[in-house]
Amino acid sequence: MTDKLQGVFTPHMVPLDAHGRVAEDELRRYIDWLIERGVHGLYPNGSTGEFTRFTADERRRIVQIVCEQAAGRVPVLAGAAEANVAETLRACEAYAEYGARAVAIVSPFYYKLSSESVYAYFREIARNSPVDVTLYNIPMFASPIDVPTIRRLAEFDRIIGIKDSSGDVAFMMRMIAAIRPHRPDFTFLTGWEAVLVPMLQVGADGGTHATSGVVPELTRKLYDLTRAGQLDEAISLQYRLLELFDTMLYSADFPEGFRAAVELRGIRLGASRQPMSETQQVDRSALQRVLHCLVADFGLIDPPSEGCPPRNGQPAAGVGREHISHIAQQVIDQLRQRGVL
Amino acid sequence: MTDKLQGVFTPHMVPLDAHGRVAEDELRRYIDWLIERGVHGLYPNGSTGEFTRFTADERRRIVQIVCEQAAGRVPVLAGAAEANVAETLRACEAYAEYGARAVAIVSPFYYKLSSESVYAYFREIARNSPVDVTLYNIPMFASPIDVPTIRRLAEFDRIIGIKDSSGDVAFMMRMIAAIRPHRPDFTFLTGWEAVLVPMLQVGADGGTHATSGVVPELTRKLYDLTRAGQLDEAISLQYRLLELFDTMLYSADFPEGFRAAVELRGIRLGASRQPMSETQQVDRSALQRVLHCLVADFGLIDPPSEGCPPRNGQPAAGVGREHISHIAQQVIDQLRQRGVL
Amino acid sequence: MTDKLQGVFTPHMVPLDAHGRVAEDELRRYIDWLIERGVHGLYPNGSTGEFTRFTADERRRIVQIVCEQAAGRVPVLAGAAEANVAETLRACEAYAEYGARAVAIVSPFYYKLSSESVYAYFREIARNSPVDVTLYNIPMFASPIDVPTIRRLAEFDRIIGIKDSSGDVAFMMRMIAAIRPHRPDFTFLTGWEAVLVPMLQVGADGGTHATSGVVPELTRKLYDLTRAGQLDEAISLQYRLLELFDTMLYSADFPEGFRAAVELRGIRLGASRQPMSETQQVDRSALQRVLHCLVADFGLIDPPSEGCPPRNGQPAAGVGREHISHIAQQVIDQLRQRGVL
Amino acid sequence: MTDKLQGVFTPHMVPLDAHGRVAEDELRRYIDWLIERGVHGLYPNGSTGEFTRFTADERRRIVQIVCEQAAGRVPVLAGAAEANVAETLRACEAYAEYGARAVAIVSPFYYKLSSESVYAYFREIARNSPVDVTLYNIPMFASPIDVPTIRRLAEFDRIIGIKDSSGDVAFMMRMIAAIRPHRPDFTFLTGWEAVLVPMLQVGADGGTHATSGVVPELTRKLYDLTRAGQLDEAISLQYRLLELFDTMLYSADFPEGFRAAVELRGIRLGASRQPMSETQQVDRSALQRVLHCLVADFGLIDPPSEGCPPRNGQPAAGVGREHISHIAQQVIDQLRQRGVL
Repeated sequence: MTDKLQGVFTPHMVPLDAHGRVAEDELRRYIDWLIERGVHGLYPNGSTGEFTRFTADERRRIVQIVCEQAAGRVPVLAGAAEANVAETLRACEAYAEYGARAVAIVSPFYYKLSSESVYAYFREIARNSPVDVTLYNIPMFASPIDVPTIRRLAEFDRIIGIKDSSGDVAFMMRMIAAIRPHRPDFTFLTGWEAVLVPMLQVGADGGTHATSGVVPELTRKLYDLTRAGQLDEAISLQYRLLELFDTMLYSADFPEGFRAAVELRGIRLGASRQPMSETQQVDRSALQRVLHCLVADFGLIDPPSEGCPPRNGQPAAGVGREHISHIAQQVIDQLRQRGVL
Repeated sequence: MTDKLQGVFTPHMVPLDAHGRVAEDELRRYIDWLIERGVHGLYPNGSTGEFTRFTADERRRIVQIVCEQAAGRVPVLAGAAEANVAETLRACEAYAEYGARAVAIVSPFYYKLSSESVYAYFREIARNSPVDVTLYNIPMFASPIDVPTIRRLAEFDRIIGIKDSSGDVAFMMRMIAAIRPHRPDFTFLTGWEAVLVPMLQVGADGGTHATSGVVPELTRKLYDLTRAGQLDEAISLQYRLLELFDTMLYSADFPEGFRAAVELRGIRLGASRQPMSETQQVDRSALQRVLHCLVADFGLIDPPSEGCPPRNGQPAAGVGREHISHIAQQVIDQLRQRGVL
Repeated sequence: MTDKLQGVFTPHMVPLDAHGRVAEDELRRYIDWLIERGVHGLYPNGSTGEFTRFTADERRRIVQIVCEQAAGRVPVLAGAAEANVAETLRACEAYAEYGARAVAIVSPFYYKLSSESVYAYFREIARNSPVDVTLYNIPMFASPIDVPTIRRLAEFDRIIGIKDSSGDVAFMMRMIAAIRPHRPDFTFLTGWEAVLVPMLQVGADGGTHATSGVVPELTRKLYDLTRAGQLDEAISLQYRLLELFDTMLYSADFPEGFRAAVELRGIRLGASRQPMSETQQVDRSALQRVLHCLVADFGLIDPPSEGCPPRNGQPAAGVGREHISHIAQQVIDQLRQRGVL
Repeated sequence: MTDKLQGVFTPHMVPLDAHGRVAEDELRRYIDWLIERGVHGLYPNGSTGEFTRFTADERRRIVQIVCEQAAGRVPVLAGAAEANVAETLRACEAYAEYGARAVAIVSPFYYKLSSESVYAYFREIARNSPVDVTLYNIPMFASPIDVPTIRRLAEFDRIIGIKDSSGDVAFMMRMIAAIRPHRPDFTFLTGWEAVLVPMLQVGADGGTHATSGVVPELTRKLYDLTRAGQLDEAISLQYRLLELFDTMLYSADFPEGFRAAVELRGIRLGASRQPMSETQQVDRSALQRVLHCLVADFGLIDPPSEGCPPRNGQPAAGVGREHISHIAQQVIDQLRQRGVL
């Protein structure tokens, strides 16, 4: 249990039944499916896993199921952020008992805290957790964890790594430059597979990638190709994965695009706990058709019976479509920001 | 129970005991203290009340205590946001039973949702809640609720108002212009007492004000003066309240400055659930000394034994101090944003 | 030359001829038209006046024409920001000779400078300008000027005021609280007429208002009503002006909505120097029809021959907003028709 | 004149004499110095070159000098953005005559324009420019140019490339995916050498790099190593260049840190046109000492006589960052001593 965390971890979604409850059997089936397709580890209660939409009890049960089902085949990195330090520590204790290899704890959110508060929060956890802790930096959703704070926190042995979802390659380098000389065992994971190849090349140890819940074969292959130094092939695949990633990420409120794609692989996720309007339901159907063609194009599923538009050559055939949808989104966002829509 | 919500509601903090548990007796004493000093209503589980740092059970217990203790003397507007729609509705049911006049539900946070998702979320609640609902817009912390979405949601009778913490007077006017003609009963509350007088003048019905947990006498007086058309006096008081507000808001991570000030009024709030570093503890002591002088200057408490620096005349004597602290904060923030501190 | 600047200043646009050159006769006619309708002062080379789209020579010529035409009837506050301090000072010298009452200098833009650089920039100007200087804070476009920096700069007699376009009433109060006790002669102007009434009530001396280039009669009336303490009427008018303001501001890239509205008053402004796409030209025509109805509704021009939709009563029927939302909808519909959304 | 732009272009600074005028002889000497050290091209009037702080005439003269001095040895990519389309086109004509290979035109700034306006602006230029045009996207300073807009603009033959300073590797990939299939000749340059290696690996053609004005030998070497597939060495150098880059970029208002470093190479740049306060002058001296050690450590100049702190091993000892954090601490300490924090 002392191996360094590395490789591709899946921040998997959680299947729900018709009543909106955790569908345990389907979750177990999904976990098996992921492990069989080569992911290096599992990451329940991540942002993709919609941890904030579950109750504290449900989050606990999810980790328990995942640990049981993984049964030591792959390590489990369990999201353990709760309402406050005491509750988070209770989750850490439970997850340690379930057999999680480590926990991942997102920086405090809702309130935007200063670096000093972020430090004090994680220090308290580091001093009391019975299980190894990885910091989780996702500045678009939670209080940012800056480099000097990471460095201060890396003085605690209990803190063994960081997952960063900023997608900024230079930031990854700054973290590595500041911490690795003092803590060669410290793990650096990226949450932004759009640039997984560059992240690995500058020294990241792996990542937690939502796409690995959809196309685990490819995310794993991307990792392996890069590690093997087959860069031309890796970058070519990176381009195709980026197209899929962008389509899932920017065509619907996160993580609904990922849910739509996972369903295409035969996992029954059920309806989101975040309700959708009629317009959104129509949009989601349209999105799923686009995703169907994209995933089919990788040869992982059959194309839709009505066929797909021809891909115009090299990587990124659907890019046009996606980008125009992106334009529209920007128009709408701007109007909304201005309070007129 | 069908009166329009108006006046000053207090988003009160929650006293904790030495073990970090809700100190029920002190909470009851605080509630009485607030009602005696004239607040028009109580607002448990608000942002100032650190709702995210309590468990679901604790949030429930807090509302129960507050409803019991208020005992009909003033209406209770209870924060009811939980992990998802189903959990939120269960809280609504419980709060209705406890006797809350209405619930306030913050827009979904962590994920940044589109207007369409925000609409779908509140629509589901509007259709199923057994108690009146006020929307809660706080764009600095949660997904924004824009004017067209408010207008769509105002079509549901169950939604009776909005609390907006943007502090933007023009935005308040846009909301009122769009909704009041169709829903004259709809309540508009501001969460930004820095500009309470202007908000009331353009038509707001009142507000939920963190300062009313500290100096309820003054927030109430500010409201009464404005309502009575004594504008010169109101604006003069508004300036002084702004100074206190800024000092509490910008000198420490929210809501620690408010906690420090409430303690000066003799309420024992206990230590925050958000840990503090040694530096922060020193800063907090310094801040409390400044706040002591500010509150004493209103004649509400005795000045500190060591005395206070002379106020150099008119409104905002301490402004210099506060603003320089603000400068420093900006320097630090910039350096942090750039990743160098 | 020692009167305090106060009242409504017009940041007027600049008529261009068919070749895109400054149309001097029409500019003179526009200046007369504005003065006759009651504006208290003129503000050439403001943001509404598109100062960045003119050459240094043109900016100079514009101020010269305006000063000549104003001929002492109203004071001229001339925008004097140039490429660097030396060039700005040369403009100050020229504008002093032309008879400008004072210059307004926007904080450095393009680069985002620290407070210390902003201070150093204005200090150099304060020490060398032969004419009084007002600072110009417009944080959405230029490096922000924070309150402590304004306070430091207010130590220079040559700096006589600030124009702030943030639209934040609390910020206006913070400036006034920090500076007025030491410099009672210092002028505070707001650039955000959406909240002119509240700004005047908390102590602002007036403003530079783009709407006063469109409906000078109303902006002036709003100022007079507020000064006379006729607040109910003032706020009612504020609501109507906000509707017009929002429509002009948010329906096209700034300041094209204002150009469209000024033309409705019979001023021939000519085509903008910023080119428009075909889509934008169509949108602009639609916008001008909406503006025609809004301005006609004030009784200032005849309604369009095809008539206007009925206003549904009270302040701010929301025609503007509705329309804009309509435009956005059309964008979305088009994208959907093309199968890209 | 039809070669594709590629390699390392230097957005050089402009030496000024004691009167603040362009120091032509020193500029010529600097250009020679850069070419001799291997830069592939020159980029006058870039952001590093402080183009906004020069007059239109000076910008013209600068390009003329650079073209003359380059004398065909390397291509010149000349920044040609002026106050409006007509003025920009006049600059394009002049620069074509001087012998510039192409012009780079930053997206409109000050006003934040919509994508449609950005498109209309560049389309007008594309239709009329006598010289090849590269778009210049720098979203932190100017209106952003999004991928669909770039794609629309790539339909004009006259537009031959884009320089992007966002530093976002995924954005570079999105641009390449959308445009290269249709325009294989289109050039993609990054302005963010912090991640030059990854940018080149995903397909960028080169960059315009401020560091190449300071350590042209190293920026060139970084480019060559990457092109030669010597990735381990390249990434190791990338880390060291990042440290220098961060120190120059984040320790002073841009581009003052670069000016301080260029001077260490023996180029006499003179004082900036942006004035500095006394505090800033002290900070700049401290910064220059840090930079002296960093550049000396590359073996490019002698270390300072007083010596340098030992580098604690491998890439990025963090001297720069440490120092900056130290400066910040001093600010804070000072404020504390004054009793204001």
